[in-house]
Amino acid sequence: PALTHVRPDGAVLMVDVTDKPVTKRVAHARATLITRPDVIAMLMAGELPKGEALATARIAGIMGAKQTSSLIPLCHPLPLSGATIDFTASDDRVLIETMVKTTGVTGVEMEALTAASIAALTLYDMIKAVDKHASITGIEVVSKTGGKSGDWVRGDA
Amino acid sequence: PALTHVRPDGAVLMVDVTDKPVTKRVAHARATLITRPDVIAMLMAGELPKGEALATARIAGIMGAKQTSSLIPLCHPLPLSGATIDFTASDDRVLIETMVKTTGVTGVEMEALTAASIAALTLYDMIKAVDKHASITGIEVVSKTGGKSGDWVRGDA
Amino acid sequence: PALTHVRPDGAVLMVDVTDKPVTKRVAHARATLITRPDVIAMLMAGELPKGEALATARIAGIMGAKQTSSLIPLCHPLPLSGATIDFTASDDRVLIETMVKTTGVTGVEMEALTAASIAALTLYDMIKAVDKHASITGIEVVSKTGGKSGDWVRGDA
Amino acid sequence: PALTHVRPDGAVLMVDVTDKPVTKRVAHARATLITRPDVIAMLMAGELPKGEALATARIAGIMGAKQTSSLIPLCHPLPLSGATIDFTASDDRVLIETMVKTTGVTGVEMEALTAASIAALTLYDMIKAVDKHASITGIEVVSKTGGKSGDWVRGDA
Amino acid sequence: PALTHVRPDGAVLMVDVTDKPVTKRVAHARATLITRPDVIAMLMAGELPKGEALATARIAGIMGAKQTSSLIPLCHPLPLSGATIDFTASDDRVLIETMVKTTGVTGVEMEALTAASIAALTLYDMIKAVDKHASITGIEVVSKTGGKSGDWVRGDA
Amino acid sequence: PALTHVRPDGAVLMVDVTDKPVTKRVAHARATLITRPDVIAMLMAGELPKGEALATARIAGIMGAKQTSSLIPLCHPLPLSGATIDFTASDDRVLIETMVKTTGVTGVEMEALTAASIAALTLYDMIKAVDKHASITGIEVVSKTGGKSGDWVRGDA
Repeated sequence: PALTHVRPDGAVLMVDVTDKPVTKRVAHARATLITRPDVIAMLMAGELPKGEALATARIAGIMGAKQTSSLIPLCHPLPLSGATIDFTASDDRVLIETMVKTTGVTGVEMEALTAASIAALTLYDMIKAVDKHASITGIEVVSKTGGKSGDWVRGDA
Repeated sequence: PALTHVRPDGAVLMVDVTDKPVTKRVAHARATLITRPDVIAMLMAGELPKGEALATARIAGIMGAKQTSSLIPLCHPLPLSGATIDFTASDDRVLIETMVKTTGVTGVEMEALTAASIAALTLYDMIKAVDKHASITGIEVVSKTGGKSGDWVRGDA
Repeated sequence: PALTHVRPDGAVLMVDVTDKPVTKRVAHARATLITRPDVIAMLMAGELPKGEALATARIAGIMGAKQTSSLIPLCHPLPLSGATIDFTASDDRVLIETMVKTTGVTGVEMEALTAASIAALTLYDMIKAVDKHASITGIEVVSKTGGKSGDWVRGDA
Repeated sequence: PALTHVRPDGAVLMVDVTDKPVTKRVAHARATLITRPDVIAMLMAGELPKGEALATARIAGIMGAKQTSSLIPLCHPLPLSGATIDFTASDDRVLIETMVKTTGVTGVEMEALTAASIAALTLYDMIKAVDKHASITGIEVVSKTGGKSGDWVRGDA
Repeated sequence: PALTHVRPDGAVLMVDVTDKPVTKRVAHARATLITRPDVIAMLMAGELPKGEALATARIAGIMGAKQTSSLIPLCHPLPLSGATIDFTASDDRVLIETMVKTTGVTGVEMEALTAASIAALTLYDMIKAVDKHASITGIEVVSKTGGKSGDWVRGDA
Repeated sequence: PALTHVRPDGAVLMVDVTDKPVTKRVAHARATLITRPDVIAMLMAGELPKGEALATARIAGIMGAKQTSSLIPLCHPLPLSGATIDFTASDDRVLIETMVKTTGVTGVEMEALTAASIAALTLYDMIKAVDKHASITGIEVVSKTGGKSGDWVRGDA
């Protein structure tokens, strides 16, 4: 096998998907921001701060999903038909779970991963003054449906 | 302490940095793409494919660094004065190391982290057809210099 | 009733429109820039200045319509299939009327409103040196056709 | 007097500000979304929905401010050094007040107005399914400081 | 005949293509960067530099193609379904050939031309320190297929 | 000599300009659109069409200049302090002349060239329905001032 985005002569390209069928597609992805318990407490403290810190990351993630094809060079532009982002805080970390939908010729894994990454970076931006050691880990696709290759669920999901 | 980007009333804001001094600043960050050894072999096989797959991720990372303030809602726009991205492949993974410089009033950690994230997502995009289980991990700041808080190096760096 | 973009748990989302039918849709919107009669005279004086001041606002409005989904966080991206912007000057004001079309699953009210807003802001930008008191008012949808909710015309239109 | 952005031959231009001094500048602007009392109740109902609906508009406004020079054709790019957006709900309307700062050669009125407009459009987007008649009014500069023309406060502010 | 993007009253518009049929469309375009033989040698010297200098231009061209409708004011947004860029160096010049595909209601000539132009400008950017006299010439469409006007090949292609 | 944007190991980078002095810089560039005399007549026919066709290209060029660093991968972002675009029609062609200014650490040749290219492509877009054979040629820098390398004027300018 070979990389789909690289031609035999070594040049990259935006793969030709002109003849692929249009189907409904969904992808779920996730990322985890790791910090300290006291920082998690700050992120979650009070009704409004909680709403706005997480809301900021949520909005950034959704807007990031819509920018995927202008950020990832060989991605095809796709008309997203839905997107949600959920946060689950626990001890010293926040799990970010994204879901992106389209009706199109390619899958939306990259959009779901980009949403998770940008949401995680946005949370990082808000806590970096209190925790320089925070990190982001576990950016991965959880499941996908639609398209020729069919449904897929990560074994350890 | 409290989150710098959240006001006492809970609203987020773009923090006022009008009176901060302009200094030279550098930030190093990193990310790691984890896949399989045979996929690493494909990424690195042949002179040209290697050049273009990695070059694509490098370009995406540098361009992503320049888009940071339009991706991360509360980031200040900064005039980047330099950026490099390096890749080190080993067994089943690629380490992505970024360096970003500016002469400005805020640090460039977010730019370095965004560069690393977008470069990693771009590599992921090129291998996703051959490895659905790939993941991105270890997105973190390695060191920073410049600014009031002074130089900082990650303890485990 | 409740807001469509807010889930029961309070989180915002990009609403799932995957299963909505694709139909032809049109929206008309408007905005009004209020200034002084002598400023209107300047905007309209001479053939070329008139052409370029209004043309600049027209181009900005059309380009703004195409950026709607990257400006309004929860808007779905839509492939616009037509757009026009008209200006009517009278005494101390300019009426800006926009029309936007698409063939898609959601309406184009936001695109028509964004076009009107950006065109009005662009006119404001050109006159702000001579009239600090100018203001923009009456940004609203005038009519829409297409989609499940059917045709609609503002009562006072 | 004549329009600053239009040359004697009628062509528009990005005005030459190369020789203007760099000073600290602040601009306050506002906009008002007019809807119905029951819609205001929905926007404000519950802690979290309130947070996220308003937070979404706030984030959109701040991000919009940063995009001003790519939306308004003849605006100069400016490095924003701070931005806040406040909402005040009353009966059938929401007042949106914005503040933008920079250290630069031109004022930030357009950025403050763009922030107010995009925040208002984002609120409109969230309520349009329940109120087609909503409108946006009163987009105007409230005050500005810095620059050669000095401080200015709207008479009726 | 008259210009399609200009109404009888002289105003420009985004032409209404709502009722045009969706067909598969392809466009080929080209551009030529003219410099000196020793500069061509630098661009092509060594495996990796060659890969990355050309790869950088290739990525820029593909990403530029995806930005066409936000760069060219009256262009309709189109979902690109494929794009390739090829370089042929000879003596004192590099020929840049682009191919863009879509399934849509308008042609992709502008996307293919934009890809060629941005790729050429990117090469220029990399050589400008060693050749101030470099220039870009011969930006033109080579052929197109699909759409009502049918297939077309430049006579001198 | 070697290419400034390519490291000894072959990787491209955004060159470090942190220590370059900030100076006032100007660049003039040009491009030529070649078509047929009857098409030039259409572009120039009537006061308003002339205004809006050329104005559209002028606006696109100015806005393109501001997007240069997000289009050309290794370009540094620069705060443009002025930009003009002029058109001279003659027989079968339109000469596009651009001028861009900044106060910054790098030159603005790329911005002036990008403005000329995007303006030319925008004119092309408006005439492509009546002249498929149109082409763009002679994209080149005419002169530059400011910076360490000093003033420079193209010999044949």
